[in-house]
Amino acid sequence: MKRFCVTSKGFEYSVNAGRGAWSTFADFPHDHYSAIFILTEQPLWERWGKRFLRESKLKSARAVFVPSGENSKSMTMAERVGADLLRQRADRRSLLLAFGGGVIGDLGGFVASIYMRGIDYVQIPTTVLAQVDSAIGGKTAVNVRAMKNLLGTFYPPRLVLAEPEVLTSLDERSFRSGFFEVAKHAILSGPGFFKQLEATSSYLVPKHARSLANTLARAAKVKIDVVSRDEREAGLRRVLNLGHTFAHALEEASGYKRFLHGEAVGWGILIVLRLARLLGAIEPAESAHIAQLVRDIGPLPGLRGLSERRILSLLPQDKKAVGGRIHWVIPERIGKVRISDQVPTSLVETAFREVQRGG
Amino acid sequence: MKRFCVTSKGFEYSVNAGRGAWSTFADFPHDHYSAIFILTEQPLWERWGKRFLRESKLKSARAVFVPSGENSKSMTMAERVGADLLRQRADRRSLLLAFGGGVIGDLGGFVASIYMRGIDYVQIPTTVLAQVDSAIGGKTAVNVRAMKNLLGTFYPPRLVLAEPEVLTSLDERSFRSGFFEVAKHAILSGPGFFKQLEATSSYLVPKHARSLANTLARAAKVKIDVVSRDEREAGLRRVLNLGHTFAHALEEASGYKRFLHGEAVGWGILIVLRLARLLGAIEPAESAHIAQLVRDIGPLPGLRGLSERRILSLLPQDKKAVGGRIHWVIPERIGKVRISDQVPTSLVETAFREVQRGG
Repeated sequence: MKRFCVTSKGFEYSVNAGRGAWSTFADFPHDHYSAIFILTEQPLWERWGKRFLRESKLKSARAVFVPSGENSKSMTMAERVGADLLRQRADRRSLLLAFGGGVIGDLGGFVASIYMRGIDYVQIPTTVLAQVDSAIGGKTAVNVRAMKNLLGTFYPPRLVLAEPEVLTSLDERSFRSGFFEVAKHAILSGPGFFKQLEATSSYLVPKHARSLANTLARAAKVKIDVVSRDEREAGLRRVLNLGHTFAHALEEASGYKRFLHGEAVGWGILIVLRLARLLGAIEPAESAHIAQLVRDIGPLPGLRGLSERRILSLLPQDKKAVGGRIHWVIPERIGKVRISDQVPTSLVETAFREVQRGG
Repeated sequence: MKRFCVTSKGFEYSVNAGRGAWSTFADFPHDHYSAIFILTEQPLWERWGKRFLRESKLKSARAVFVPSGENSKSMTMAERVGADLLRQRADRRSLLLAFGGGVIGDLGGFVASIYMRGIDYVQIPTTVLAQVDSAIGGKTAVNVRAMKNLLGTFYPPRLVLAEPEVLTSLDERSFRSGFFEVAKHAILSGPGFFKQLEATSSYLVPKHARSLANTLARAAKVKIDVVSRDEREAGLRRVLNLGHTFAHALEEASGYKRFLHGEAVGWGILIVLRLARLLGAIEPAESAHIAQLVRDIGPLPGLRGLSERRILSLLPQDKKAVGGRIHWVIPERIGKVRISDQVPTSLVETAFREVQRGG
């Protein structure tokens, strides 16, 4: 198990990633909290709750359940959870544990940030995506109909516990999906981690989660390094947006039904690789090398039938756009990207079209 | 006009209070914002909007309207405003002006704090209460059914502009109501300000708002001094809760219909004065002196018919209660209060009953 330290908003917190992570909760000073609450989903808690309580040595904790799925990331649900916490007598000195995937983490962090103007919380991510990405960095959010993650806060957790064992109960598709985000981290990181991920790409299945612990921890470390240096996305943190500009548009255009988030990121990486080639920013061989890793991770649901115009119209709405511009994260080689807000729309169109046609 | 400087969360902002405050918006660097939005209520904006735009020299600003009244302080409304801002293409570098009373200020600050994870905002309070209290200090909030202000953030504005002229269009009752908060500030401040307020208590009517500018600015300064030293209410800021523990319970018990917030604070001060006497914490003459000022500010809607049991049951729910305890702010003399969490419930009951009976 690895312990990484993140400095954020004037305090430090630890990301403990690897086997036995849950048991490290006992080291976290939590006696001074008035009560501990766990925000989670019922089926997940039924499968893992007892084990978590045993390993964490947590004696009393009250559960607050929300339905599974993206729909729970809403203002309505945040309000409901707030009212639930109040009914169960949570006060300013209560601690909230967000036990689940990205939805639970984003919603739980958001509720923690606004409940009585902010209480402490701990992230206990239970999906690949959450363990390597969304549970780290203090971004919280809910969706509104018109835009995912439109409302949220920067509000770092007090602790992150990423136990790979919990990933063994994921279905295969969700599991693989998270590895497209891992690929993103490998591209940002450099040849060392990239090779490591390539070496594992043939056994990315839930039953091997334990033996992927090292890869997962390394992927988490990439995110930690970036957010430690740039919490509020003023500059450096933008690189984490690699593959995400298109990913959000693809998810939106398909009504969040066709692609899992990681899969959309997979496509986003492939499209932006094509864009980088059109811009002459990357060598063809390097681009092909990266694309191969993405393809090796697993099959992606097709892009067929998605209206090019609709997807392109969704791009400028990206939240990272300032004054309507899009900041593209363009890969130059493994371990190096650049940010550009000067990419001609015609090239963006071409890149999408070519990838959509399987060119 | 007075300019006060508040230091908060690593930056400074100015509270400009007095005649001509709106015109100082021109000194505030705002050219770098991508767009400026004004959150307000239609009737208020119709009455004062043109004048504000003229004095502030603001050329283009887009209005977002919400209905008048406490019901607008909700998660649903925050979501609606967020969606409105998005539709009008607000981005991360947009500026929001909250132009209105406490509801607009609390809601606007909350939306600003969560829109795309936080945009800058300016408070332009248009009620007595907002000018001396709620617009200062960076507390934002919305209500949930079970508790007022349950969800919110600490998120300081970039500027506060308190123009007394705008108060001339308030109805007399709302106007007076705000002066119960001013009285609270005078009690906290000391004999100097207390005497000044006593001297003005016979002409607390909207048409005299201009000549009350100095009193209002001084009241704002009391809040500024407290929050500058203790933003997050860990200690000192608690004194601002004087009269508020009962006030919230009275409002809740009467369904937010009988009392304006300031009026409930007026009662809250009278009850806690009685409590202080029962505790032997204050001299009878001093208590009577303070109570007289509260009575002089104006009539208070009666306490009759409010169930003692219900009101007392609402007290421990106060958000400032930690682990169920109530931190009472007990006046000892003009200019001095103490905080106590060791007040016997029986005395609290007696204090309420005696004040309710007009004893």
